[in-house]
Amino acid sequence: MPGKFITFEGPDGAGKTSVMKAVSQQLQVELGDQLVVTREPGGNPISEAIRQIILDKNNTAMDVRTEALLYAAARRQHLSETILPALAANKLVLCDRYIDSSVVYQGAGREIGERAVYDMNQFATEGLMPDLTLYFEVPVEVGLARIAKNRPSQAQDRLDLEQAAFHERVHDAYLKLVAGDPKRIKVIDATAPLEQVEQETLTIIKNSASSYFK
Amino acid sequence: MPGKFITFEGPDGAGKTSVMKAVSQQLQVELGDQLVVTREPGGNPISEAIRQIILDKNNTAMDVRTEALLYAAARRQHLSETILPALAANKLVLCDRYIDSSVVYQGAGREIGERAVYDMNQFATEGLMPDLTLYFEVPVEVGLARIAKNRPSQAQDRLDLEQAAFHERVHDAYLKLVAGDPKRIKVIDATAPLEQVEQETLTIIKNSASSYFK
Ligand SMILES: Nc1ncnc2c1ncn2[C@@H]1O[C@H](COP(=O)(O)OP(=O)(O)OP(=O)(O)O)[C@@H](O)[C@H]1O
Ligand SMILES: Nc1ncnc2c1ncn2[C@@H]1O[C@H](COP(=O)(O)OP(=O)(O)OP(=O)(O)O)[C@@H](O)[C@H]1O
Ligand SMILES: [Mg+2]
Ligand SMILES: [Mg+2]
Repeated sequence: MPGKFITFEGPDGAGKTSVMKAVSQQLQVELGDQLVVTREPGGNPISEAIRQIILDKNNTAMDVRTEALLYAAARRQHLSETILPALAANKLVLCDRYIDSSVVYQGAGREIGERAVYDMNQFATEGLMPDLTLYFEVPVEVGLARIAKNRPSQAQDRLDLEQAAFHERVHDAYLKLVAGDPKRIKVIDATAPLEQVEQETLTIIKNSASSYFK
Repeated sequence: MPGKFITFEGPDGAGKTSVMKAVSQQLQVELGDQLVVTREPGGNPISEAIRQIILDKNNTAMDVRTEALLYAAARRQHLSETILPALAANKLVLCDRYIDSSVVYQGAGREIGERAVYDMNQFATEGLMPDLTLYFEVPVEVGLARIAKNRPSQAQDRLDLEQAAFHERVHDAYLKLVAGDPKRIKVIDATAPLEQVEQETLTIIKNSASSYFK
């Protein structure tokens, strides 16, 4: 597969979206339309419709495996409509969350099991893993405190209503993934000031995707 | 797992729905609410919403793996809300299509591969296979001719617009499943007159679920 596929991962409130925004503005200047910045569901009508079912607060009867299958379906469509065409056109793709998020949130958080969720997602991705994953590490409390500070409670969706134990399982599972695949997953200390996190992220991306910066 | 789980399978127009209707009316007299007759998506709001995404004719960009994952998600929710509770209450459950349909329609028909679709569906079902599957065998042309005769062309959905080669792959894949699992899957000659097919179906169900008919 040509192109370069880089994902941003980490607990809620780690700073993934903030850092991606700042970093992509800077990369944009050098790369123009060689850069594709995306996140699931990715703006296509099918994945958006799937996401609506997942986030609908009326769907309280949703089984955890149904939810995991719906995330995988939305991922597949995003891959098919956005990521695979971009990689085929040799672009640098930055994606806010991908398969690791399902492994930790559904596999560990919802306790389906990380291996089962990973294997099922291989059906969705046909084995396409990121070339590089940036893992933004913060303690659970730090991330949740950042979010609580910045969002009115009405804006919380079903996922936010989960308890501390859920977030601890997610965090632990992220650390296991990092330990198991240090070649793909690079850890960034996201407790540092935002500008410093942005700078470190930019450096890692430029080093790892150096062929784009000639 | 207590209860008894029986599925109806076969190509389009084989007579599954017609036979299930007639047979369940007769069984109902003897079994009352010990009998549960169902089909995917099963009437629950989540599976119905998923089904709408699959059947929406505007969704022409739908990837075949997205479609397979959506079918599995709808199946999971139907299992979780309808089939598992019924089996836990020791009921006799008749279901119009189940995992074999995904294996043959998505795996063979859409050419994803039968094994990949089967494995992914094991995530959805947690390995719950039917105790008995009735396979209604008709040649492809016979089934399609029956449907063409009875439905105005406006009522055709996206799936019906597929060509003959698709239906041949589906039919061949059904025959492979039957050959590979003769203990679970019983073949019924569905080219016979409807009353005869109904009678044979009733006999097989009564023999195999004899504890319900004391
Ligand atoms: N390094 C940082 N120091 C202080 N605050 C930060 C830092 N990084 C992000 N924030 C703030 O934390 C909040 C959450 O950040 P952001 O939404 O980027 O996190 P996220 O990882 O995308 O979270 P989610 O998983 O919920 O999408 C924002 O208000 C952001 O300004
Ligand atoms: N044994 C039979 N002989 C003649 N006609 C039949 C027979 N069985 C069913 N039919 C007719 O064939 C048509 C299709 O039957 P039915 O809808 O029950 O098939 P099905 O297997 O449920 O199809 P689908 O897979 O499309 O749901 C109906 O009009 C039905 O009356
Ligand atoms: Mg974010
Ligand atoms: Mg039918």
